Amino acid sequence: MAKRTVYCGKVSEDLLGEVITVKGWVQKRRDLGGLIFIDLRDREGIIQVVFNPDFSKEALEIAENVRSEYVLEITGKVVNRDASVINKNIATGMLEIEANEITILNKAKTTPFYIEDGVSVSDDKRMQYRYLDLRRPEMTKSFILRHEITKSIRNYLDNTGFIDIETPYLTKSTPEGARDYLVPSRVHPGHFYALPQSPQLFKQLLMGAGFDRYYQVVRCFRDEDLRGDRQPEFTQIDIETSFLEADEIQGFTEELLRKVMKETKGIDISLPLPQMSYDEAMSRYGSDKPDIRFDLELIQLNEIVKDSSFKVFSGAIENGGEVKAINAKGAANKYSRKDIDGLGEFVGRYGAKGLAWLKMEEDGLKGPIAKFFTEDAERLIAATNAEPGDLLLFVADKKSIVADALGALRNKLGKELELIDETRFAFLWIIDWPLLEYDEENGRYTAAHHPFTMPKESDIDKLTTSPGEVYAQAYDIVLNGYELGGGSLRIHTRELQEKMFAALGFSKEEAEEQFGFLLEALDYGFPPHGGIALGLDRLAMLLAGKENIREVIAFPKNGRASDPLTSAPSVVSEAQLDELSLATTRIEEETTEEE
Amino acid sequence: MAKRTVYCGKVSEDLLGEVITVKGWVQKRRDLGGLIFIDLRDREGIIQVVFNPDFSKEALEIAENVRSEYVLEITGKVVNRDASVINKNIATGMLEIEANEITILNKAKTTPFYIEDGVSVSDDKRMQYRYLDLRRPEMTKSFILRHEITKSIRNYLDNTGFIDIETPYLTKSTPEGARDYLVPSRVHPGHFYALPQSPQLFKQLLMGAGFDRYYQVVRCFRDEDLRGDRQPEFTQIDIETSFLEADEIQGFTEELLRKVMKETKGIDISLPLPQMSYDEAMSRYGSDKPDIRFDLELIQLNEIVKDSSFKVFSGAIENGGEVKAINAKGAANKYSRKDIDGLGEFVGRYGAKGLAWLKMEEDGLKGPIAKFFTEDAERLIAATNAEPGDLLLFVADKKSIVADALGALRNKLGKELELIDETRFAFLWIIDWPLLEYDEENGRYTAAHHPFTMPKESDIDKLTTSPGEVYAQAYDIVLNGYELGGGSLRIHTRELQEKMFAALGFSKEEAEEQFGFLLEALDYGFPPHGGIALGLDRLAMLLAGKENIREVIAFPKNGRASDPLTSAPSVVSEAQLDELSLATTRIEEETTEEE
Repeated sequence: MAKRTVYCGKVSEDLLGEVITVKGWVQKRRDLGGLIFIDLRDREGIIQVVFNPDFSKEALEIAENVRSEYVLEITGKVVNRDASVINKNIATGMLEIEANEITILNKAKTTPFYIEDGVSVSDDKRMQYRYLDLRRPEMTKSFILRHEITKSIRNYLDNTGFIDIETPYLTKSTPEGARDYLVPSRVHPGHFYALPQSPQLFKQLLMGAGFDRYYQVVRCFRDEDLRGDRQPEFTQIDIETSFLEADEIQGFTEELLRKVMKETKGIDISLPLPQMSYDEAMSRYGSDKPDIRFDLELIQLNEIVKDSSFKVFSGAIENGGEVKAINAKGAANKYSRKDIDGLGEFVGRYGAKGLAWLKMEEDGLKGPIAKFFTEDAERLIAATNAEPGDLLLFVADKKSIVADALGALRNKLGKELELIDETRFAFLWIIDWPLLEYDEENGRYTAAHHPFTMPKESDIDKLTTSPGEVYAQAYDIVLNGYELGGGSLRIHTRELQEKMFAALGFSKEEAEEQFGFLLEALDYGFPPHGGIALGLDRLAMLLAGKENIREVIAFPKNGRASDPLTSAPSVVSEAQLDELSLATTRIEEETTEEE
Repeated sequence: MAKRTVYCGKVSEDLLGEVITVKGWVQKRRDLGGLIFIDLRDREGIIQVVFNPDFSKEALEIAENVRSEYVLEITGKVVNRDASVINKNIATGMLEIEANEITILNKAKTTPFYIEDGVSVSDDKRMQYRYLDLRRPEMTKSFILRHEITKSIRNYLDNTGFIDIETPYLTKSTPEGARDYLVPSRVHPGHFYALPQSPQLFKQLLMGAGFDRYYQVVRCFRDEDLRGDRQPEFTQIDIETSFLEADEIQGFTEELLRKVMKETKGIDISLPLPQMSYDEAMSRYGSDKPDIRFDLELIQLNEIVKDSSFKVFSGAIENGGEVKAINAKGAANKYSRKDIDGLGEFVGRYGAKGLAWLKMEEDGLKGPIAKFFTEDAERLIAATNAEPGDLLLFVADKKSIVADALGALRNKLGKELELIDETRFAFLWIIDWPLLEYDEENGRYTAAHHPFTMPKESDIDKLTTSPGEVYAQAYDIVLNGYELGGGSLRIHTRELQEKMFAALGFSKEEAEEQFGFLLEALDYGFPPHGGIALGLDRLAMLLAGKENIREVIAFPKNGRASDPLTSAPSVVSEAQLDELSLATTRIEEETTEEE
């Protein structure tokens, strides 16, 4: 083989007249008037190569046998294209190579789908032939972008005193949190490791060890049912520091994000980033991760409708619930009755029993429930700022259902009404989180973040008396409606950690059994500490302008947690199971994978 | 809390006269003539703080209650120490802080061992209190060094066109190679993922996808019995490239290592690194990873002893084996008969039936077998370059046993005779590896590296006729007698890959079942490719001057693959097993962990 002198996509005018060697894949071959044109592709782009019997008969003859996706090595001179065939869509579109030599490095069968952007092919087929899917320029670009993001983050942290320390993947299973992936031990029959859901305790222990500033780009594992933005394994930028206050941790996180946005997207974001309390976010947007690129806020109407003759509204309030509305400005004509029925079904998925609506016309509010609001119409119009052409949508229910239903509806309408500036990146801190959530099903409190989160100093006493009212020193960072990451100060004394476990309903024995090593560690001079973790997959997805993290994961799993390429997971031999002292109680039949 | 202005270990003369705030752990407190002296430690080092009632009575009073490993915040003025108490052993030894304010950020119980270098404590106790063990300055330093190494490697690769791409940890189990760690699937009962032993196939598929230059700092997993330099999980610098020849891959690897050595150790290594064929290494050093910091080479004596009346020697040669010797220069007086018996036991562990020996004295060779060599004494002396005072040690056996036994003995003697310059870093390429090894137990060939290794072009025909004679396009990099990494060109056509699987005794069906997706991928335009993987743990261990990779792994497992800190692995609930459709057939009793 000759050495490559330049990537196809990097052939530039500087090389005019020079003899170069490129290597890559055949994007397209055209035969035209005794000449052959080949578009040769590599990760950086495409260059046109022309074979002409005047340059080399042998090369032309070889080129005649070349087909799409063949791997070629080509040597020839860089020249300007004829003005008539300049292609302004590609970077090298002014240039071409006059081929003197060609070597077929490998052949290719006809691929199951074309290697080009925007190709229409099922997700499972894309995953089965992932190595072909990844050849598509937009995929290649996404992974180069992902690398640029990681690099930018690492450089920032490396240059500000953070130490990258690796924590184990074979760890201990703890029943708190999501479901663990387990790994049976061969040496210890009947015992299991767990793959970490996050390196939370290890990073805290590293603070106990005095490392002061730790980071890791680390894989995390959760055996949960999958959704668009979830995968069995995902990657986290994991950060922990000692001796810093929450605002300082938020401060360097902002600097980090500013650097990433500048270096990878050329976008300047201005700091400090906006902050919003959890309560405000839930109240105004019905979400703890609001997309603030558009308004369409939730309007609370309790005062106005509490005595309404419309029992759905007044009844909800009587039962301790609330009534909220969204004013979809100018949307009255865009949604037919049938469309609105569809929206009603949509909010039903979030537990709402119904979606009431009114349209504002020149002569006032119209719609099935208008008759209940003749007296309060003025106040309702004022509160919702309703103008002719507006569509008002109401949910009356328990507070949490109202928030979930209208929060989701808001996002749906934001997209449908094209209210979102897709070029914008809107970061937002959500602060002042509740420490605990009441789990009605199990009649106990669970940690809103995790059991190691520091309560607000002033709320510590309430931990035993009214745990539901305790706020946490926690902060989430939201980007365009996605939870990009979250962090908190952590508990650093045994006394408070034991109080926290008690508030979560742990007996002393349970706390000792599961987290005894942490409690003991807190006895030996633990520094005040806190940190944050950012989801790398989501960040890369958002910056790449994609809607699913699979697009930025090289070998993702499908909706059933399988890999159609390698057929993982698979049946293993009896001998392997014997060595692990395991038996399977049920074996899934081999089936055609469907998502 | 006040903000820290500087790390304890970074207080310098530049700060003289300034009021600073430091935070850290109490290394030591001394009360002296009404004053209190505290050595405060953080990850960067130690600073002395003095409490004097003239500066602050309150601070002095608080300091009176402070004990070792308390976490403190201290504010005060940087001053020069009295000339009489200057400590030249630490960087800040000329300076101290006159404390005006002190805050106890956390208390500490008496630690189970002192936080200081060289402390004598069992390995399991160190691991149980790893967060304390890691506070010891030499441990902290090792992890900072490890980070510097990773950073240096990443920067090199980032700047030379490599793209960091993450590959999955939940992959498919393949029976080739070492034992897999398995992960049961909940969604697919009776099916299992495997944790990757290396991302080998994924990195090859990334070449098929056209990424051209890939790297990843990636965890790998092998469920093997543990030794000093093995852990269940370890970290690999994983590199793959397209379109390069072996010498080009070795070339950038050398540049990478030169940069790491310069940036982390300040050492210039000269390139190109020396190369040695596998056959030569085995012949001269009895090892495929020779430590070339000392000589003590193996000397083949077949010609001289083949007709010897000493049947142990002549018989070994008759049976197709060989006789080799090491000349331990000047060691005759250092090893008594009893010592030599000990060496005999040592080589016995490598299968040698005995260790013959001779001592060279002023008047010739002496020792129990000297009588057999009266005639050939001159030739023996010449061949071994024996001079008075030398000790000759012989093994006669099958070639592989001679190599193993004398190779190990060579390393042992190298240490015992202090022949090794411990400040040296001796890199060495081992090239021209055999492609296959004959597995006598199972009567078949196995891959010397892995089944995807490219044979030498000229040997491909032998793959079907005499597979044992085929050499590989493979290269290992050795540092100070440790295998630091290895790589090869890979097979990139289906035809050759199928031939390789056949040589390994796979039926067509078995090959298809296990590696069908790879074979199929090779059909679609796979580029010529190859790469290398370097063991990060070993590299960090060697550069840190340690003898066990545990010293550079933050939370390692012990000799029984357990973590004494978190008690992983552990028993899990029946509910967890039920969800995974699993039953345990045997459960280990809880025992006191011993290594």
